[in-house]
Order: sequence, then C-alpha cells, then structure tokens
Amino acid sequence: MTERLAESARATEGVATSQAEFDKWFDDRCASQSQQVTPIPFGEMRNWSFAEGTGNLVHDSGRFFSVAGLDVRVDRGPVREWSQPIILQQEIGLLGIAVREIDGVLHLLMQAKTEPGNPNGVQLSPTVQATKSNYTGVHQGRHVPYLEHFVDVRPGGVIADVLQSEHGAWFYRKRNRNMVIEVGPEVEAGEDFCWLTLGQVQRQLAISHRVNMDARTVLSCLPGPELGSGVHTSTELLNWITTHQAMPDVETSVVGLDGLAGWRRDEERISHESGAFFSVRAVDVVANSREVSGWTQPLIEPHGLGVVALLVKRFDGVLHALLRARIEPGYIDAIELAPTVQGTPENYAGFPEEEREPFREVERRLAQDRVLFDAEMSEEGGRFYHSRSRYTIIEVGAEYPDQEPPGFRWVTVPQLAWLLQHRHYLNVQARSLVACLRAVTG
Amino acid sequence: MTERLAESARATEGVATSQAEFDKWFDDRCASQSQQVTPIPFGEMRNWSFAEGTGNLVHDSGRFFSVAGLDVRVDRGPVREWSQPIILQQEIGLLGIAVREIDGVLHLLMQAKTEPGNPNGVQLSPTVQATKSNYTGVHQGRHVPYLEHFVDVRPGGVIADVLQSEHGAWFYRKRNRNMVIEVGPEVEAGEDFCWLTLGQVQRQLAISHRVNMDARTVLSCLPGPELGSGVHTSTELLNWITTHQAMPDVETSVVGLDGLAGWRRDEERISHESGAFFSVRAVDVVANSREVSGWTQPLIEPHGLGVVALLVKRFDGVLHALLRARIEPGYIDAIELAPTVQGTPENYAGFPEEEREPFREVERRLAQDRVLFDAEMSEEGGRFYHSRSRYTIIEVGAEYPDQEPPGFRWVTVPQLAWLLQHRHYLNVQARSLVACLRAVTG
Repeated sequence: MTERLAESARATEGVATSQAEFDKWFDDRCASQSQQVTPIPFGEMRNWSFAEGTGNLVHDSGRFFSVAGLDVRVDRGPVREWSQPIILQQEIGLLGIAVREIDGVLHLLMQAKTEPGNPNGVQLSPTVQATKSNYTGVHQGRHVPYLEHFVDVRPGGVIADVLQSEHGAWFYRKRNRNMVIEVGPEVEAGEDFCWLTLGQVQRQLAISHRVNMDARTVLSCLPGPELGSGVHTSTELLNWITTHQAMPDVETSVVGLDGLAGWRRDEERISHESGAFFSVRAVDVVANSREVSGWTQPLIEPHGLGVVALLVKRFDGVLHALLRARIEPGYIDAIELAPTVQGTPENYAGFPEEEREPFREVERRLAQDRVLFDAEMSEEGGRFYHSRSRYTIIEVGAEYPDQEPPGFRWVTVPQLAWLLQHRHYLNVQARSLVACLRAVTG
Repeated sequence: MTERLAESARATEGVATSQAEFDKWFDDRCASQSQQVTPIPFGEMRNWSFAEGTGNLVHDSGRFFSVAGLDVRVDRGPVREWSQPIILQQEIGLLGIAVREIDGVLHLLMQAKTEPGNPNGVQLSPTVQATKSNYTGVHQGRHVPYLEHFVDVRPGGVIADVLQSEHGAWFYRKRNRNMVIEVGPEVEAGEDFCWLTLGQVQRQLAISHRVNMDARTVLSCLPGPELGSGVHTSTELLNWITTHQAMPDVETSVVGLDGLAGWRRDEERISHESGAFFSVRAVDVVANSREVSGWTQPLIEPHGLGVVALLVKRFDGVLHALLRARIEPGYIDAIELAPTVQGTPENYAGFPEEEREPFREVERRLAQDRVLFDAEMSEEGGRFYHSRSRYTIIEVGAEYPDQEPPGFRWVTVPQLAWLLQHRHYLNVQARSLVACLRAVTG
C-alpha cells in the first residue's frame, strides 16, 4: 500500500482528472455552492437559545453541539487557572476518504464543500463528513453519499482507521474517526466529487484555504514508510510521551456559560474582557446546495492570525520534526504532540518575554531559513468563523541546536506516521502539518 | 531486547536466586509482613466518612480515592441503564519493574508486598507501586524504594512505558503507568525484594494468588516478537477496534453515593438489593511493616468467584486468542479488548439464556479441551477485598468455529504485544491473561 500511495503521490498531473478538468470542476462547485453568511445577534437565532440556569448555548433538539463553560487548573505554564467557553459535542464524527484504482493509479475521492465559517467558501473535503446521527439514521437529513462504503468496508479495503482529537483549546474531548478505505471500480464521482491522485491533492495543500481541516487530518493518517533509524528509538519516544501524559495535573470541570470569570456576553458576542482569544457569535446562513435552504447557528471566532510552525532538521540526512508535548484543556490525555510553535501572538501580549520569543523566532527563520511549506489554512468551518492560521514548515540548518528544550522531541517522518496509526498522539494542528510535510518531502 | 527476554524466560531455575533461596525469602516475607485485617462498621473508620450532601465515601485529606455513584446508560446489551458505586481516583499511579543483567541474564526485581484485600497476604509485586503523590513528593510517607530509577531513566534503559486502564466496572477512568526499566549493576535487592529471571516469575504465575495484578499488567507490556502473519492484518484489527470504540453510545455521569437506585447502605455495607455484584465495606488493618502501624479504609468486595477465560486456537500452526470488544462504564473509550469470557456467573441469574451460556461453555471446555493455564488470581488488594477469579486459557481444537461471533476477533500473540505498546487497547483482565499466555507458550 505504501508503494501504491507513493506512485499516486508522484502522479501530480493527474490520471483520471487533468489539472484543467479539476480547475473547471472546482470553479463550478464554487459557483453552485454559494452561501450567504451574515453575523446576527444571538436573539435572532432560530432553534438555538441560552438554556435556563446554565446559560449554555443549546439547540432546541438537544443535538448537534452546545457551548458551555470550562474551569481549568493546570500545575505548570504561565497561566495556571482560567475559565473559558468550550464546545461540547460528545458524538464521534466520521471523516472518510474513499480511494479507488483508476488506470492502475490510486485516486482519492475528494468533495467540494462549503461551510459557513470558511473564509473563502468551498474547500476540498473528504469523501464523507458524517456525524453519528447521520450514520445511525437518527438524522432527518438526506442520505450521506458514499457513507455505506465506510460502514460496510469491503474485505481488504481498510487503509487507515483511527480516532483523533480536534482542537483541545475549543472542544471538550471531541474526537473524529479518520478513515481511508479502498473501494471498487463501480464507485463513481457524483457532481460535488472528483477523483484526484494523492499528488494532485498534495499540490492543493499549498494553496491557502483550499484543503479543509477534515481532509488534512485524514491525509495525515495514511500509512507511512517503514520505521528507519532516528535520533530516538520508538521505545524512547513512547517513554517521553507517556511521561508527559502522566505528569501534569490538568483539572477541568464543565460549568455553565453564565457568569464565567472574565467573559462578557452582549447582544452579538461572548468575548473575553481583554479582547483576546476568541468570541462566540451567531450567523445566519442562506445556502442553495443543502437539504435545508437556510439556518442559523453559533460559531467560534478566533481572534488574530494563528501561527502554526514546524521546525525540521536533518540528522545524518534523515529529516526530523521538532514536536512539543502541549497541554490543552480539552484533550482526553493531559497532552498531545503539537507543532514546534502554535498560538496566536496577540494572545501573548503582556506575557513574559520567553512566551513571546518563539513567535519572533518563527518570523526570523521564515526570512532566513529554508521554507518548505507556507500557506494560510482554516479550521473546521462548521464550528469556526474565519479562523485563519499561517502554517509553515521551516528546515533549519546545522547551527540549530540538536539538544531539545524540555518538552520537545525530534521525531522522524516514519515515526510520525507510526504514531498516527494510534489515537490521540498528535494534535490536529500537528496532523495538518504532517500531511503538508509528507506532501513536500515525499 | 526480545532475545534477551526470551533467554531470561528460559532460565526457569534461576541464576542469581535459586528456587530454594526464593522459597525461603518468600516464606520469610510472609512471616514478617503479617497483617491483621478485620471488617468493621463504617462508623469505626478513622479519617474516612460519608460526605455531607453527596454521601460519597471520602478521606479527610481529600486524597487517596473516594467512592461515589455512577449513572450509566448504554445503547446495547441486556441491561441498558443502571446505577452503581464507583471508585474515583484521578491520579495516574506508577507500576514499575526494574530489570538488571546478572551473570549475563536479565533479572526482574520483584517485591513481596501485602495488601489488606489480598485473600492470602503477601503477593509478588512490581519493584515500585507509587501514586503520583509519592513521586511528586506530596506524600508524608516514607521514600518509595527504587522510584528514582523510574523518574530519571538511564539512557537506553526504557523497555516499556505505557498507560493502561484498571477495572472499568469498578473504577472511573483510572489509569496506571506501566514501566519496565533496565538498571545498572549498582542496584541491589533490599530486604523485601528479590532478583528473579523472567522464567521464574512466569512459573509463579501458575500459583494461585501469588503474582499480584500490578505485576501481571506490567509483565503483559513487555516487548514481544515481530508481527508475523495472522488471521487478520494489523490494519484490519485497528479497523475493528476503532469501529467498536466509535459505535456504542455509553453515557455516564458521576453522581452522589446517597440515594443510588437499587443500592442500600447499612452499618457495614453498601450493597445491591439483589445481593449481586459487589459491596462497599470498611476494614481495620493492623500491620507491622508499614510507615504507619495501622489504619482503616474502605474496600470493594466483589461477590462470587469470577470467571476470566481466554480461548486460543491454532490457525496454520499460529496461536490466536479470541478477544472480545467489551463495554465497561469506567473506560475512557467505549470499549477495551477483554478475554473471551469475563464475569461472575451469579450476577447473571435471571438473565437470558445466551448471557449465561458462555460460562457453561467454559466449564465444558475446561473438562474436555486442552487447558494451558488455570489458576485463581486476585485483583488489586489495596482496593478490593478477597476478589477472586479463576483465570484460564483453553486451547480449542479444529472443531471450534473459525468464524468470529459479532464483537470478537482472533488475535495473535505478537499482535497482542504490539497493541500493548499503546494505551487502553486491552483491559486489565486481558493483560493478566496475556502475561500468562506468554508464560505458557514462550
């Protein structure tokens, strides 16, 4: 399978779909899926309201998701105690990419999909994004195309299947099932779908806001090359990871959204009194390609442009990425492995110098070092409004210290792929960058 | 490392410690660690009481553990909704075995340790059983011997390090860190400790109530042989596991112990009105080898003799164990992999025939098939009072169906070892039987 995927990655010009055909298809999708998204006051939402008692933002049906409060206490880091709004969504969603051999080359069935929070409308998405309500038939909505191939996988058809976390800063213990499944020649691409080689999809990753978060995380879980040698053995890495899973005390308790310390609600926003972090707001959506023609919903609007940067370095010719054990309150474990630098510089105003220095270092290195990847990307547009981060991969030279700071480790690309077979080792930002790193390094 | 461990496993007669020396040491430990454990009414406990409001059983310091209530709702199985007492203990404990080469052969530093709930007093235990309070210095108790070797591991010294769950039926999301560490020749065995080859420890597993639960789970995490071929590829196994992690709806909420539906509290016990399952009770402990000479504490007393059975079968000469995806309310994921049959027959009185049949099948097969392992073992004696289960491994013949019932899979021994590198795939009963299976099959 690794060899077949590598061959598909080399077919950057496409086999079933030429680049020109893809461009036309994508333009057409953008035209047909146009959506009008308008911020509205909370009071104008339909079927969403602030629950009596807790003040949580909930849907009348009790389904979809809700926004509650979270009290957090940690035993390390510059801020040890805080409160924040948090998205509750217990259901495990299914994110799946169907793969099919066409003319001897594996193709991925990618979907063009608009979400109200996307800064740019349509993005390339997995074949299937389904909630459990979708695939257990609870939903009233229309049938999710191609879902049956993921529920009843054909023998030998599994390429990857693993639970992975979403943003631990915004979601409480939310997980998705990431699946890649090989399907048979009878499966055809519907109007909103297109067969692309892995190489074509990887090229699209370089275009800002083109490949959505769900597609990026599924791509990151594709099987990788054999574990070769690295700075650390896999046993040493597991020891380091387990140490960081076991050591920090991270206490969280879900509380009501009303009266959350430091947060204020007005007609249009729930915001932190400092103006930092993010706001909760409401939007009205008018669409023409959905089972329902319009709806309203809450979205989280992160403030500022995020910085998500991975430093990579060669040791004896072998590329290693510098991963960080990062605490976020919504993780199931205390930590997950994150990119070298992850955050929004504005949120660190007034913090000690050493907390702001990593962002400045990324800027310096972007100017001076070898930049392997540099694009703006957005997070899940069904929950986040115009979330924008600059995702970069920077290859540092021999002058960069080999020695790892506390909480950091050099990890090879095959080791990252090995960890990604199992749940909750890498956070969603790291997974995005693994997809990009594999795209630019092969 | 696998070869070095295999060599140690073959040294069943001992190298550093002869069998006669071990027997004498163990008898001496039993004499010197004698403990008097007496059931007492709750009202006679010191420093433990029922908290105002919740009725939870808590320690005055807020530390150690507490007993609360749990409301459970699941969407499958014969019972879909119930309430039960549950042990809360957020801290991740450390269970570690130190390994050292003596005369060219790896030896495990095993500890003789009494716990008040052990049906037989002293059991063979890991080198270290420490709570986080122990290893972060919060505790007032005496220094935990050998702990420093697990906190500051010497370079290249990690053999295994992974978080694993405890009983999901009795604990809420409790996890322990399972470590095996190689130490240098300067490390000597103290009075309560003994250097044994892996083969010697594995022989002790066959003696009822001899090797404690903590030692069994650490032994199960030892690295195993290379993944060979099996009925299922590892990718297929991960697909099956992820399906079962993602599909069931298991809703749990921690509630107060007071007024728990179906449970009654009297002076001496909290018990289910049916008399089934388990009781919460209190004991007074008088000991002579501890930092404190006596104490009182609550313990969970499981009712009846548990049945924990693993069916194994050869496919093309390769041994496979039949594992079951089992829901327990205290797991972090919906399921973990459990032995083929696990439960206490008395608890299934009045249940449909098909729920009781597996226990009868185990009895039939114990009489007629090839029994590879058969011993009574107890669970953690610091929390459970005289918990006893008959652990068996039965090799079934060609007449046993290859076809797996829903929720079951045939898994090879190397695949089990591979899964055990990562957290929460196998439950604690399955881990005990993996340790035993590797002991009897090499």
